[in-house]
Amino acid sequence: MNQSRPGPSLRTIPEGDTRERLVCGDCGFVQYENPKIVVGSVVHVDGKVLMCRRAIEPSRGLWTLPAGYMELGETAIEGARREAWEEARADIAIDALLAVYDIPRIGQVQLIWRATLAAPGFSAGPESLEVALFGWDEIPWEETAFPTVRWALRHARDIGGLAHFAPRGNPPGESASG
Amino acid sequence: MNQSRPGPSLRTIPEGDTRERLVCGDCGFVQYENPKIVVGSVVHVDGKVLMCRRAIEPSRGLWTLPAGYMELGETAIEGARREAWEEARADIAIDALLAVYDIPRIGQVQLIWRATLAAPGFSAGPESLEVALFGWDEIPWEETAFPTVRWALRHARDIGGLAHFAPRGNPPGESASG
Repeated sequence: MNQSRPGPSLRTIPEGDTRERLVCGDCGFVQYENPKIVVGSVVHVDGKVLMCRRAIEPSRGLWTLPAGYMELGETAIEGARREAWEEARADIAIDALLAVYDIPRIGQVQLIWRATLAAPGFSAGPESLEVALFGWDEIPWEETAFPTVRWALRHARDIGGLAHFAPRGNPPGESASG
Repeated sequence: MNQSRPGPSLRTIPEGDTRERLVCGDCGFVQYENPKIVVGSVVHVDGKVLMCRRAIEPSRGLWTLPAGYMELGETAIEGARREAWEEARADIAIDALLAVYDIPRIGQVQLIWRATLAAPGFSAGPESLEVALFGWDEIPWEETAFPTVRWALRHARDIGGLAHFAPRGNPPGESASG
């Protein structure tokens, strides 16, 4: 059960395919790597937004939005609600899709929703050092964990309470690094 | 390189994780299975929409929209444009995000855009028997390949040429099967 490179680690084009895939040299298993979906939310509470200070790497100690990898068996919205609970012990109501961000370098598509609290209260989950509310003029921009956190906050601020709007994409020319 | 069940086939909770994952009994490799992203488009051409008759299973012979799995290294929009080229030899311009559909039973999130032709012409790619344009009163509803094809066509018809709109989700109460 222990070797230096377990699992699919050979890059080759499987028969009948057109792209290189990772194949296991031991058993021939082909791993189809696809982009992963990150689901998250900007949660509006009394004119402020909820942010979490990360207890884990990467970017430990910096501020982020409740977000994480979507899991099998859930809808994207269920995933965003689960992440808000796991990271901020917040029971949220999803309102509208705020943004779809692409980060092709790391194979991610991020779906970020606008949300409110469905029930009062929040607190730090196991992956957060603390959870707090910030007004737009209080956000710790210099201590945010990822570019997409800054994008989503700016987009949420621009969109405000608009009822019908198209979700935003990456800011022009920006592809982020995570 | 050949055995009956190559690769990760044991269901177990890896150390430090909270969910069952597929693990390879030979080498211990953990396969994180995540939902996959399908990217596609409703392409509007002279008041009609472009559809492809499938040359491959599942649903061979039935009509679909140009759509398929997003690949690593591309943005979601690039993926939708690639699929339109591969399946319909159509060079499309993406306009707006029409819909985000969840099909948790098969671990899919579908991102469907409204599009137009960026250059004239289309023809059947290798996965299509034929490609054709249909007016709203001509669509072969009974010969569509998947529920999400019908959803996307209905949503595109409802939305028409609206400039600013929120993308639609699954029709109420519907979770589809593919």
